[in-house]
Amino acid sequence: MKFIRDSLHGNLQLNEFEVKLIDTPQIQRLRRIKQLGFTFLVYPGANHTRFEHSIGSMYLASRLAYNLKLSNEQREMLRVCAILHDAGHGPFSHVSEAVLAKSHEELTSKLILESELSEILSEKFVPKEIIKLISGEGRLGHIISGDLDVDRMDYLLRDSYYTGVAYGVIDVERLIHNMKLEDNLILKAKGVQAAESMLLARYFMYPSVYQHHTTRIINSMFRRCLNQLFKEGYIIPEKIYKYDDSDIISTARNQKGPIADMMHRLDNRKLFKTVYSLKLDELENPNAVFKIEAKKIKSFEQEISEELDIPSEYVIIDVPDYPSFDEMKTNVSSNGNLVNLSEISTIVRTLRDARFNHADLCIYLPEEYSNTANGFNFENYIEIPK
Amino acid sequence: MKFIRDSLHGNLQLNEFEVKLIDTPQIQRLRRIKQLGFTFLVYPGANHTRFEHSIGSMYLASRLAYNLKLSNEQREMLRVCAILHDAGHGPFSHVSEAVLAKSHEELTSKLILESELSEILSEKFVPKEIIKLISGEGRLGHIISGDLDVDRMDYLLRDSYYTGVAYGVIDVERLIHNMKLEDNLILKAKGVQAAESMLLARYFMYPSVYQHHTTRIINSMFRRCLNQLFKEGYIIPEKIYKYDDSDIISTARNQKGPIADMMHRLDNRKLFKTVYSLKLDELENPNAVFKIEAKKIKSFEQEISEELDIPSEYVIIDVPDYPSFDEMKTNVSSNGNLVNLSEISTIVRTLRDARFNHADLCIYLPEEYSNTANGFNFENYIEIPK
Amino acid sequence: MKFIRDSLHGNLQLNEFEVKLIDTPQIQRLRRIKQLGFTFLVYPGANHTRFEHSIGSMYLASRLAYNLKLSNEQREMLRVCAILHDAGHGPFSHVSEAVLAKSHEELTSKLILESELSEILSEKFVPKEIIKLISGEGRLGHIISGDLDVDRMDYLLRDSYYTGVAYGVIDVERLIHNMKLEDNLILKAKGVQAAESMLLARYFMYPSVYQHHTTRIINSMFRRCLNQLFKEGYIIPEKIYKYDDSDIISTARNQKGPIADMMHRLDNRKLFKTVYSLKLDELENPNAVFKIEAKKIKSFEQEISEELDIPSEYVIIDVPDYPSFDEMKTNVSSNGNLVNLSEISTIVRTLRDARFNHADLCIYLPEEYSNTANGFNFENYIEIPK
Amino acid sequence: MKFIRDSLHGNLQLNEFEVKLIDTPQIQRLRRIKQLGFTFLVYPGANHTRFEHSIGSMYLASRLAYNLKLSNEQREMLRVCAILHDAGHGPFSHVSEAVLAKSHEELTSKLILESELSEILSEKFVPKEIIKLISGEGRLGHIISGDLDVDRMDYLLRDSYYTGVAYGVIDVERLIHNMKLEDNLILKAKGVQAAESMLLARYFMYPSVYQHHTTRIINSMFRRCLNQLFKEGYIIPEKIYKYDDSDIISTARNQKGPIADMMHRLDNRKLFKTVYSLKLDELENPNAVFKIEAKKIKSFEQEISEELDIPSEYVIIDVPDYPSFDEMKTNVSSNGNLVNLSEISTIVRTLRDARFNHADLCIYLPEEYSNTANGFNFENYIEIPK
Repeated sequence: MKFIRDSLHGNLQLNEFEVKLIDTPQIQRLRRIKQLGFTFLVYPGANHTRFEHSIGSMYLASRLAYNLKLSNEQREMLRVCAILHDAGHGPFSHVSEAVLAKSHEELTSKLILESELSEILSEKFVPKEIIKLISGEGRLGHIISGDLDVDRMDYLLRDSYYTGVAYGVIDVERLIHNMKLEDNLILKAKGVQAAESMLLARYFMYPSVYQHHTTRIINSMFRRCLNQLFKEGYIIPEKIYKYDDSDIISTARNQKGPIADMMHRLDNRKLFKTVYSLKLDELENPNAVFKIEAKKIKSFEQEISEELDIPSEYVIIDVPDYPSFDEMKTNVSSNGNLVNLSEISTIVRTLRDARFNHADLCIYLPEEYSNTANGFNFENYIEIPK
Repeated sequence: MKFIRDSLHGNLQLNEFEVKLIDTPQIQRLRRIKQLGFTFLVYPGANHTRFEHSIGSMYLASRLAYNLKLSNEQREMLRVCAILHDAGHGPFSHVSEAVLAKSHEELTSKLILESELSEILSEKFVPKEIIKLISGEGRLGHIISGDLDVDRMDYLLRDSYYTGVAYGVIDVERLIHNMKLEDNLILKAKGVQAAESMLLARYFMYPSVYQHHTTRIINSMFRRCLNQLFKEGYIIPEKIYKYDDSDIISTARNQKGPIADMMHRLDNRKLFKTVYSLKLDELENPNAVFKIEAKKIKSFEQEISEELDIPSEYVIIDVPDYPSFDEMKTNVSSNGNLVNLSEISTIVRTLRDARFNHADLCIYLPEEYSNTANGFNFENYIEIPK
Repeated sequence: MKFIRDSLHGNLQLNEFEVKLIDTPQIQRLRRIKQLGFTFLVYPGANHTRFEHSIGSMYLASRLAYNLKLSNEQREMLRVCAILHDAGHGPFSHVSEAVLAKSHEELTSKLILESELSEILSEKFVPKEIIKLISGEGRLGHIISGDLDVDRMDYLLRDSYYTGVAYGVIDVERLIHNMKLEDNLILKAKGVQAAESMLLARYFMYPSVYQHHTTRIINSMFRRCLNQLFKEGYIIPEKIYKYDDSDIISTARNQKGPIADMMHRLDNRKLFKTVYSLKLDELENPNAVFKIEAKKIKSFEQEISEELDIPSEYVIIDVPDYPSFDEMKTNVSSNGNLVNLSEISTIVRTLRDARFNHADLCIYLPEEYSNTANGFNFENYIEIPK
Repeated sequence: MKFIRDSLHGNLQLNEFEVKLIDTPQIQRLRRIKQLGFTFLVYPGANHTRFEHSIGSMYLASRLAYNLKLSNEQREMLRVCAILHDAGHGPFSHVSEAVLAKSHEELTSKLILESELSEILSEKFVPKEIIKLISGEGRLGHIISGDLDVDRMDYLLRDSYYTGVAYGVIDVERLIHNMKLEDNLILKAKGVQAAESMLLARYFMYPSVYQHHTTRIINSMFRRCLNQLFKEGYIIPEKIYKYDDSDIISTARNQKGPIADMMHRLDNRKLFKTVYSLKLDELENPNAVFKIEAKKIKSFEQEISEELDIPSEYVIIDVPDYPSFDEMKTNVSSNGNLVNLSEISTIVRTLRDARFNHADLCIYLPEEYSNTANGFNFENYIEIPK
């Protein structure tokens, strides 16, 4: 038996097998991956890591399993899944994911199979089954990756704690006590309110934290760096889960030219400025924005750079993250029937539209060029599919 | 006006001048220096940085100044001092300090004078006066660096918040409301209890966090790395305040031989094991341990390494940090007289002895050699001056 | 200078004049009035009082005034208003208000004018002006009683703290930092999200706390008691602000017959049971329910009691509190224009409908009679105006 | 299964049997007994009750039992004991205890035997065994009432939460995880620090909360009231556990003469003033003060009243509560031996003397008489046994 002290959930207990898993380089690496990427440049306390989040998810999985009256073996499986669920994340978490062809879930699966994790898992479980659960397959899978999973519960609480933004304080107690497991993870009617509140927490965290205006600029700058490091072969995308935050930073610093320049700006917080913003909720079809192909964006940037006579590395068009709220699809048992959360809750329904409230497509330039852009008609250079 | 959201103290306000100071590379670098070095390998939430601590100290300095009814200009000076007070810290904070000839206070002063900070400061203040205050000189200096300063108040609270260890929760309200400024910062008799509690908080944080057994092993391993990087010229000690945590880590990883090996062990948490421990409170004169010269320790290590046939890089003798409790000297006004806190408080007096309770001199070896050490009489190789 | 330690906001400072006000029997009485009436029978920690809430509101008023850059005198006025704003509350707060002809605001005004409070106020202010502010009149009045006032901010936070229900944790920092005072209290666009979140906090606290099913039963039972005490002259409604919680309870216990019986049930938590519930969101016009006259309800109860052969004191028809969300009307400054919060926020607009989600008209009977009601068609006895 | 939401420990689960126990008038009454008596007149948030404390202790007992690997039946027994352990407390908790001949433990035992609690208990347990456990007898008894019991853990945390005084924040996690049950409840060496910290929490809470100067005045005034109510037969001491806070208050208010006057002063916070204070730590033998007989104190008061020509009801000599720190006796397992906590911990040893630091014997008079006492030699009228 070992204990880890989590700043959120207190002393968390680990058995020998779990300690063995956690003591692998693959899980230890997560201690060096910031949960919220570069958000610490906006909220100085946001230095928490994928490691503590994984342990925290393990704890919540355990409590939920206990409440669902699952067997000890099932509970143990879920704990192990939670420990592993983010192992495939690249440096700075989602920031690197955006420039990869593969999702972190796929990478997690690949990593488990090709590393010692697989061997350790085999002592107690079938690794492929663990991978399935992590991908959200099967009844138990929904607990790890579903509409209303322990991953989300932990990160909302944790991101609130470390940013100091109160919105993410959700009523985990009530959620956990109002779930049951049938073919699927079901919410009891008494838990609807707690689920609404969780969805809203995410809705509010979106512009305040996850898609905070400054964070988006920083992420865009960093992705430009990372892309170049990939292209020039300094970092191998397929092995992204072998690097930690420091690796990327120091590799970038050791370059010359635009990459080093971009990294230097990030280090000194000399951030690009927004020279154009297109609010999605003013569009007839906001969804179309997410259909612009990457190649197209590249070419828009190219045109603008030529027109304004600015090096093309320095023109960034940034499409916001798509605000998906999968929790809407949660099944709720109401008088013996199963209905969709969004059917039963007006609040949830509202979010379908409201989610574009805070989203905008932006163009950023280095501060020294931002005057050049005065009066420039950026909208002429951006084509949105119908 | 700008606001920074601190996870401890809430929304903190900054004026234009302060923003300018904070936006320098020197202060921005602090975002990349962990407050507690490698403690995150023991308490996974301990990823907080010198940056947030500096802003937090600024806030407490401001509140204390307000309560002491200082002038606006004095308050502004103190805020600026708090922002700057840790600028000279090397990577991983105190861990690197231990292998340098100079204290972080000296380095802070040097850094201010040789960088753009000095120029910015000159717009409003005399830089040398700011440096004096930061060093704790003069009446106001005690607020920044004294027996009971805002630095300490902030770090105790902050370290508690991020490690999840409750001991550091001190009653800052009561302390701040019970201080007055005469020739010196004086505690009113009503604040004695809060001061006792602060001292005790530090006393308890010492073995639980600051000198946690595992943390000491990790720090010793890292210092060995760092020393070697200095010796081989990869890192320049006089410029230590130019590097951040990532710089050192990636430099170490890029080496070959023992340095890279040590760094690899740290990355994967393959830690040295304790093979010998000498409890200081069992010695007649615990203070003597702190008088062993560095050169001597080197030679003890050498002898042990030869005797046990282990590479000398792998034998680490670790003398604990000296548990100094300067708060004891705090002046307390009691019925019109000034007395020492330790005179008025039995609790505080007790700490004079109790502080060695948890301290021990240790010897660490890599796990693979720890069997070799079975039955070995380490005490024969360690000579403590009378 | 004096300090009061508030469990939410920390050490709060009071000047001599404020201490004088607070030391009157009128304000001291608030220490003995529970903020949430009988909610402690549902959430055992909900024993907090109007007194701490008044001091807490004073603190928030002070901070808001400071941020709005009001003069010291204006700030002092607002602090005093916050201290006094609930002085007219009867025992168990809103529970007694419901059976009075007058609102607690009217009673506060009456109490101030006829008590020593008026005399004390006159030393520094014109009492009638203070009363106006408390009633929400004038520019400054909106800070005390308006769409987005300090009263609400404090009670949401406080009720969350003491019930342990997380929904009320609102981002007071952001609200306060995003207000400005023109003809009216205006929210800056940057504060919209914090305001949305506050409205939602109230929306969620409604069914979980304020209109919790069990709390409603308890309140209905208690109101029946209180009405009888009024009718029989044991308590004088016009003097309701002279009694505290203990007075009413002991008066009720000392009665005979139905009053004592009802009080006895409350003391021992032998609560009435719900035998009928009409969900308002299933009605075409939920608003109509709030138009049923008190006299009508009395007669419905009478008929049911005769039909079922149950003493009429024991049949309770309970119309829920009207879920008014005045915050919707908050003025928001957006690109130089003033718009209504509900215009700018889809979320807020949604609440207009959603607010009836959790409301229902209920009928309660003592447990021993609840079988009698099986199969009884209560709906035939309730007539809702068109 | 039922849940109660505790503001400290979250959603607490109760089984059917426990609900039955809790739903008795004897346990429901605890909802109306303030945990800290009149402390709410000093800390306005201190309105918490014996009820929540009992439920909280149940939760901690449960967790400790789980960690000690006790059987389900033993765990259930301990939970039930915690629920019941304070059932015998009179109104305002310890304030009334001081004027009774019997301790609240004796009264709890009496109450259980003579009420329906005994009958309910018999369904699952032998009531006398439960009573024994509550009194701290036997191995398991130490968990409920011992040197380091769950009662203490809960009240320190709870009193801190509601007063806002940070000292009581103890590391319950570490305590619980470092206990083992042999013949007795034993602390593992790793838990020494947490135990030290708990003792110190109590040491600091003593003058800040439990024996706060103003609280002592209030309690003395109230006890005078209560004594008179006993003497005149309005309240029957043997039945003290049948009354709640409201009963006593309203009975006192309904009197005439000194009792009503005293109650009136309490209601309006017109408190007695301290006219004399004898610091115990300046005495050669502080313990002697606790040996002054009640009869003697009565006669000292009488003499002073005659000499100063003040009604004798208005002269109060107040001996502080004896600061016993039973935690000192906790058994610690250290290298296979059992030693006393005070042997192993210098800090704990210190408290043996330090505990008198904040204690003083005081004399209080109504404010209107306090001038009369100027220059009066109170010490001549107080005789302390050798």
